[in-house]
Amino acid sequence: MLKANEKAFQKMAETDPVLVDIVLLKEAIAIEQTTFLHAGPPISFEKMCTPMKGAVICGLLNEGLADSPEEAEKVALSGKINFEPCHNYGVVGPMTGITTYSMPVWVVEDRKTKKRSYANLSEGSGVGLRFGEYSKETLDRLDWMKETAMPLFKKVIKELGGIDLAPIMAQGISMGDELHMRNHATTAQIIKLISYKLAEISPEDSPAVIKYMSVGNDQFFLNLAMAATKLAADAGDGVEGSSMVVAIARNGVEIGIRISGLPGRWFTTASPMVKGLYFPGYSEKDANPDIGDSAIMEVGGFGGCAMVTAPAIIKFVGAKDVKVAERLTESMYEITLGEHPIFQIPFLNFRGLPLGIDIMKVVETGITPVLNTAIASNKSGVGMVGAGMSTLPINIFEEALVALSESL
Amino acid sequence: MLKANEKAFQKMAETDPVLVDIVLLKEAIAIEQTTFLHAGPPISFEKMCTPMKGAVICGLLNEGLADSPEEAEKVALSGKINFEPCHNYGVVGPMTGITTYSMPVWVVEDRKTKKRSYANLSEGSGVGLRFGEYSKETLDRLDWMKETAMPLFKKVIKELGGIDLAPIMAQGISMGDELHMRNHATTAQIIKLISYKLAEISPEDSPAVIKYMSVGNDQFFLNLAMAATKLAADAGDGVEGSSMVVAIARNGVEIGIRISGLPGRWFTTASPMVKGLYFPGYSEKDANPDIGDSAIMEVGGFGGCAMVTAPAIIKFVGAKDVKVAERLTESMYEITLGEHPIFQIPFLNFRGLPLGIDIMKVVETGITPVLNTAIASNKSGVGMVGAGMSTLPINIFEEALVALSESL
Repeated sequence: MLKANEKAFQKMAETDPVLVDIVLLKEAIAIEQTTFLHAGPPISFEKMCTPMKGAVICGLLNEGLADSPEEAEKVALSGKINFEPCHNYGVVGPMTGITTYSMPVWVVEDRKTKKRSYANLSEGSGVGLRFGEYSKETLDRLDWMKETAMPLFKKVIKELGGIDLAPIMAQGISMGDELHMRNHATTAQIIKLISYKLAEISPEDSPAVIKYMSVGNDQFFLNLAMAATKLAADAGDGVEGSSMVVAIARNGVEIGIRISGLPGRWFTTASPMVKGLYFPGYSEKDANPDIGDSAIMEVGGFGGCAMVTAPAIIKFVGAKDVKVAERLTESMYEITLGEHPIFQIPFLNFRGLPLGIDIMKVVETGITPVLNTAIASNKSGVGMVGAGMSTLPINIFEEALVALSESL
Repeated sequence: MLKANEKAFQKMAETDPVLVDIVLLKEAIAIEQTTFLHAGPPISFEKMCTPMKGAVICGLLNEGLADSPEEAEKVALSGKINFEPCHNYGVVGPMTGITTYSMPVWVVEDRKTKKRSYANLSEGSGVGLRFGEYSKETLDRLDWMKETAMPLFKKVIKELGGIDLAPIMAQGISMGDELHMRNHATTAQIIKLISYKLAEISPEDSPAVIKYMSVGNDQFFLNLAMAATKLAADAGDGVEGSSMVVAIARNGVEIGIRISGLPGRWFTTASPMVKGLYFPGYSEKDANPDIGDSAIMEVGGFGGCAMVTAPAIIKFVGAKDVKVAERLTESMYEITLGEHPIFQIPFLNFRGLPLGIDIMKVVETGITPVLNTAIASNKSGVGMVGAGMSTLPINIFEEALVALSESL
């Protein structure tokens, strides 16, 4: 292995994520209220897909920067709002990923380096901001998350002295989660870990907060897993000469990757359509191109890379059977630098997750990463219309490799 | 398949267990306060192993039938106490299985037939009655379970209109539990299902009750799974001519089986020593022979039969690797009548659990069921000293087959 890749891999592998706090975005990073973070590589409001535009409108209403959806759209087009990728700020957001100034974010910190990453909170059941909805229900829920849920979570994290996320993630892999499309086990584990504390802290609000995590919210842990994995990816970023992928993200129009050796530089192409299964009443014509920062999970060896850990969803994401899942994971080992030292797959006799996608190996083998992902509607406020797998186009890996060679 | 076995298998397979209540044993079944139920086939107090004797003492103190351990031992030997197998009353109990008149039991009911089975509550972390401890701590906990936990569970079950156990068990199998030695996922699922309701019902007591389920109590669901599986086994019992096993149970001295065609009749032999791994500081000389009614799980296709579903514990129970686990489950298909229609193993491409152990197939193949099990100390109040696998001796299957032939 290249010395540079060895170093980048090691830094990613040894990250030890601890949930240390929940704060408003403005308390986490230095930004203005008019800076809106979004999923994927950079994009202007005009070019955004419909659900992301809807989410921007929702964000403007939530921030009080507009009083109506019509006004919000004018504000969004006025040039007063600065749109930037979540990824540039140590933040990751599922689906549209719109994360703004006054929204609560989980704070995940590396035990050793004290570096931090952030992700917004799962909105639970229903459609929500992340799918571009800006109904009263969605706005009320955002308020409730900030005013009721956040203070309780803050106290519980403090009382428990932080929450180690790696053990929950490791357990998740041994319990049928691949931590991208399936977070049943991780979600149940964190509920188990904190519910009695929540009940102690607030007899009044704990029933609603525990219910919010427990009912119709099986992906509750995803946002935490994303922040933890972003922390690992950022740890591996910026190693001169390294060809390791440190970001895969989609804004719903373009998909982009970043590599460790060229920090901050995106290599983008049109976002692919997801191949998979649609919910009754929907078909490919209802689908948005692939969207969201949740592909960070594959950067960390989860999701499509770990398909074999989650046989219960292989049909849901459109794979045929367990053998297909096993072959998929096997093929991911061909394009990764090594195996995760802690996150192990029991069914492969505790082999570590395939970690550290290497653009050199991708270009050499022609195998590109496969993402497990939700299929979002191409309309605002409709939500998820299916789930499936999305294969990254090879051209961005080739371009990244050329750029890396030129830089050396 | 024999018509009789087809019928017995079908009745077992179609049982649909619902947790409908929690009551004191005396409210569940018609017994006297002086009738003590124990794990395994029939045994007198004199012949019981040390931990079971300790549990009897604990039960006598808890019932107020004695004021000191010394007095309790005299009462136990006086002939006033009637010792009977749990199994004879639709009850199952882990380890010593001592279940008495005033102890709370879960009530699990078949949706269709309304037949019921029962199991006591997990005592959580620590040693406890089930391992023969009769300390003040253990007695206080039994009181707390009856006075504080039981009323809350009763209300929550009522408010939720009963709790379907089959979906939790099916999820468990797809989440790395084999539901005998590993109940992490099932336990987490039921915590997730009821915690917010508990918090609603009792702001005062819910923190302690949620904590009791959540901390150091990863086998909390086992007792529920045992009652659900006892219900299925009893449904398959009493079919004339059927050679299907409907009970496997150990009292710590003897192990016994029962078959459908000869209801109520035990075929027993010396209980085997468990082969497995010991906790630090313990060895085989500290181990009691195999003990407990929890082998009902293998009767229902779980535990050792489902080893491949729980790769995370294969080393813990002393198996070498995943391939060994897979071969073990494969061999259980050779001695069972069919596959469970609902409880499916994702890793075997959703093949149903091996269900309905057939003594004819056991005798024909020479393969006997393998139990995943805890290793209890051979002293009172020490607790678990290891875990492993226990293989049933073939002679009891041969004897049962002879007896069945003679009866026809």
